[in-house]
Amino acid sequence: MKPVCLVIGAGAGIGGTVGKRFAQENYHAVLCRRSNEEGLANLVLQIKEEGGDASGFLLNAVDEGSIEERIVAVEAEIGPIEVLVFNLGAQIGNRTLEETSNKVFELGWRMATFALFRAASTLFPLMEKRGKGTILVTSSTAAVRGNAQQHSHAAAMGGRRMLCQSLSAEYASKGIHVAHIVIDGSVDAPDTLGKMLGAEKFQQLREEKGMEHDGLMLPEKIAETYLHLHKQHRSVWTHELDLRAYSDLAWWNH
Amino acid sequence: MKPVCLVIGAGAGIGGTVGKRFAQENYHAVLCRRSNEEGLANLVLQIKEEGGDASGFLLNAVDEGSIEERIVAVEAEIGPIEVLVFNLGAQIGNRTLEETSNKVFELGWRMATFALFRAASTLFPLMEKRGKGTILVTSSTAAVRGNAQQHSHAAAMGGRRMLCQSLSAEYASKGIHVAHIVIDGSVDAPDTLGKMLGAEKFQQLREEKGMEHDGLMLPEKIAETYLHLHKQHRSVWTHELDLRAYSDLAWWNH
Amino acid sequence: MKPVCLVIGAGAGIGGTVGKRFAQENYHAVLCRRSNEEGLANLVLQIKEEGGDASGFLLNAVDEGSIEERIVAVEAEIGPIEVLVFNLGAQIGNRTLEETSNKVFELGWRMATFALFRAASTLFPLMEKRGKGTILVTSSTAAVRGNAQQHSHAAAMGGRRMLCQSLSAEYASKGIHVAHIVIDGSVDAPDTLGKMLGAEKFQQLREEKGMEHDGLMLPEKIAETYLHLHKQHRSVWTHELDLRAYSDLAWWNH
Amino acid sequence: MKPVCLVIGAGAGIGGTVGKRFAQENYHAVLCRRSNEEGLANLVLQIKEEGGDASGFLLNAVDEGSIEERIVAVEAEIGPIEVLVFNLGAQIGNRTLEETSNKVFELGWRMATFALFRAASTLFPLMEKRGKGTILVTSSTAAVRGNAQQHSHAAAMGGRRMLCQSLSAEYASKGIHVAHIVIDGSVDAPDTLGKMLGAEKFQQLREEKGMEHDGLMLPEKIAETYLHLHKQHRSVWTHELDLRAYSDLAWWNH
Repeated sequence: MKPVCLVIGAGAGIGGTVGKRFAQENYHAVLCRRSNEEGLANLVLQIKEEGGDASGFLLNAVDEGSIEERIVAVEAEIGPIEVLVFNLGAQIGNRTLEETSNKVFELGWRMATFALFRAASTLFPLMEKRGKGTILVTSSTAAVRGNAQQHSHAAAMGGRRMLCQSLSAEYASKGIHVAHIVIDGSVDAPDTLGKMLGAEKFQQLREEKGMEHDGLMLPEKIAETYLHLHKQHRSVWTHELDLRAYSDLAWWNH
Repeated sequence: MKPVCLVIGAGAGIGGTVGKRFAQENYHAVLCRRSNEEGLANLVLQIKEEGGDASGFLLNAVDEGSIEERIVAVEAEIGPIEVLVFNLGAQIGNRTLEETSNKVFELGWRMATFALFRAASTLFPLMEKRGKGTILVTSSTAAVRGNAQQHSHAAAMGGRRMLCQSLSAEYASKGIHVAHIVIDGSVDAPDTLGKMLGAEKFQQLREEKGMEHDGLMLPEKIAETYLHLHKQHRSVWTHELDLRAYSDLAWWNH
Repeated sequence: MKPVCLVIGAGAGIGGTVGKRFAQENYHAVLCRRSNEEGLANLVLQIKEEGGDASGFLLNAVDEGSIEERIVAVEAEIGPIEVLVFNLGAQIGNRTLEETSNKVFELGWRMATFALFRAASTLFPLMEKRGKGTILVTSSTAAVRGNAQQHSHAAAMGGRRMLCQSLSAEYASKGIHVAHIVIDGSVDAPDTLGKMLGAEKFQQLREEKGMEHDGLMLPEKIAETYLHLHKQHRSVWTHELDLRAYSDLAWWNH
Repeated sequence: MKPVCLVIGAGAGIGGTVGKRFAQENYHAVLCRRSNEEGLANLVLQIKEEGGDASGFLLNAVDEGSIEERIVAVEAEIGPIEVLVFNLGAQIGNRTLEETSNKVFELGWRMATFALFRAASTLFPLMEKRGKGTILVTSSTAAVRGNAQQHSHAAAMGGRRMLCQSLSAEYASKGIHVAHIVIDGSVDAPDTLGKMLGAEKFQQLREEKGMEHDGLMLPEKIAETYLHLHKQHRSVWTHELDLRAYSDLAWWNH
């Protein structure tokens, strides 16, 4: 039985690509996303065609019990989860304070902070029994500094970062590796950036900054670092790192 | 008509004492706390006996609309709020991940993060019209680093810190001063530390570390810094500072 | 005998103004600067005309023994130094790596880092015997994040910040208050900003951003916060704070 | 001709081991260290016996021109330096302020900060012409927070960290990858930790915490992360990460 890499937030960007990469390393990739059943099925199919194992599930992470039940079912039916890739974002674009409703603010927290807490609460006791496990948390610039029009996003990601530090402080010595990965730039991902910008603007951005310019972060290259983090020997674990395109300034410089 | 200093979380520690200090500076102190009507009435009475103006209201900050309605009522009935002291904590003592229920985790966020968002959403547009205002946010070590058994607290305070940065980025240039005050140590406060430890242990701690040793942070001394922050000229605003007893190590050293 | 406030780096900006402010609080202001004997004499005269006590000394802080001898002489001839305002900068404007000579890089360190170490090495043992003392260190954005063309400045200030934390960790419990003040913006100071820009550009900047716009940091307002830091009760000391004009973005937002 | 990986500070711990790892990846490892010619020769021999290419040079990094001349000579005689591993530490054990002489304080800076500046000043223009290059800088906890008895070390490493950020801000877009690696724990290295503790205590520590406990950081495992950083695609570079044993608390938790 293959060990499982469970991806929560498995779109066509970082999440799905990391899942695919772990499948190539002989993990059973369990891919969960909220919508787009067809996209999910295609991703599973691609992995299988490459000779890997994969399963796909639609999952609305903010629904009560949704993540918890999925984790229990995967453990029972597919195998022990060795790696959790937590890839839910809470980016909703720029909104002034007055444009940010209570509902939107709460939703950001439910997705980026509370869902991670629920996942860890369910999975960490299982990993602890096995004495090992990895959780790779995709994060963003908003986790390390707030900004205008980022009230919901920054509050959610900032809470998440402190949660990751808390989880690591409690569970690292029990063999669970928690890594907080600060994605400090734009990812070449049609499902997230593409949707936010619209098809035309996204293509324009790709031509100007991405493609051979390498100024958009490539998911398959990001996946290499996710894999490396998981493979780190337990005497040398990384808790936090940043990732950005060589041509971008770091967040502290702009 | 006196300008108003509204304190949310006005117990016998930082909140009430800061309110009293602003009353001495000719503000009408509006003190809100969740419970202990008698303690609240005493605080209001003390301020009045000193010749100041004060009003007290019981307020459950996590109740929908509670903060919003109080702000609107204060503005209508007492006067424009020039200073908001946001002093709600979310410290629940040490709890392992397994001991932290979803409900507790959510409550921490509702008090420390969401309540601040709701307060700012209601008050900032009013302050913006007046071209000025100050919000002094009491924060804690957990806002800058997570720790074992601090999952709920750290996630809530970390989110709050990023929210404060976001609010400041959007509103400072409109004349609203947002200050995030990291209380990095134990406060000599019967309502919070006293309750957490119990009367006997608290008294013991006071005798060993507090009192003439000055190793517990004194609320009336903290209040001087709150007042100073409010009085800073707009060409030299502080967004964040730390406070700790001289005899304590900084959070980054222990 | 009045207690002494020794200012190292007492030009017409922060240093001299802070010295003047402490003189108003009944300190003997001892003002040291590298050059401009006339400016120094004028500053001393102003303080005396206001009824304060002041002395002025030319001092090249990078000269071996210069700071050490001055501290010893002040203690012997004027009085115990209760407050040290360490206000030496190392800003040399923007220079690419290739434009930054070894000599310039070293000079930055000698002024901003090594001179502080030498001052603390000489003064802290004296303050320790008296069980009290304050050192207020003027710092800058470059202490918390590097940037292009800031190699010398950032390396010097970054080292200084870590030195301040080290000094505080070792001496706070002995009664010495170390405060690191991050000046995150342009100060309305003819001696530093004025010299760097030239008279004409400086005046233009003052008219566009400073003066009634309050977008340049006013030294006399900065001085209020320096004074407040010194006056903080030892149960509630601040180690680090930032200062910037309300109309400026924080360093983490640009 | 093989590309060169130049290691400055190539002892039996991180430096030499990283050099060896790059040699396995088909780099010519050029190993420089201050002393122990025999140890250096052995290391070179080991690499050659494994089929790799290596050269060794004694080099006192603080000597004027030493690093500069070595870089020029390597480029002329061995090949273009693609990777620089800058592994000079400045740890001198715990020393109070009074025990820290001016000379010791300066030496720390000369090794940890100035030597890096000199290396970058010499090498970056060459790398810039080639449009690529990597510099991997071994750093330590002292770079991110000062502590008692760490005056020299923290000031040197803190300056170094800000220098790394400055170098990256100026050169990343020119194709030079600067990575700052925070080693937050004890490395299982006889040359550094072993010398600091003495043979007996070091062996005791290894038995209690290291070996099968994996509580001491293993240089050959650290080397994997150094290699990974170098191999990162330029669309996804890491500037900073931390490394520590799973059983150690992060610096912000102790």
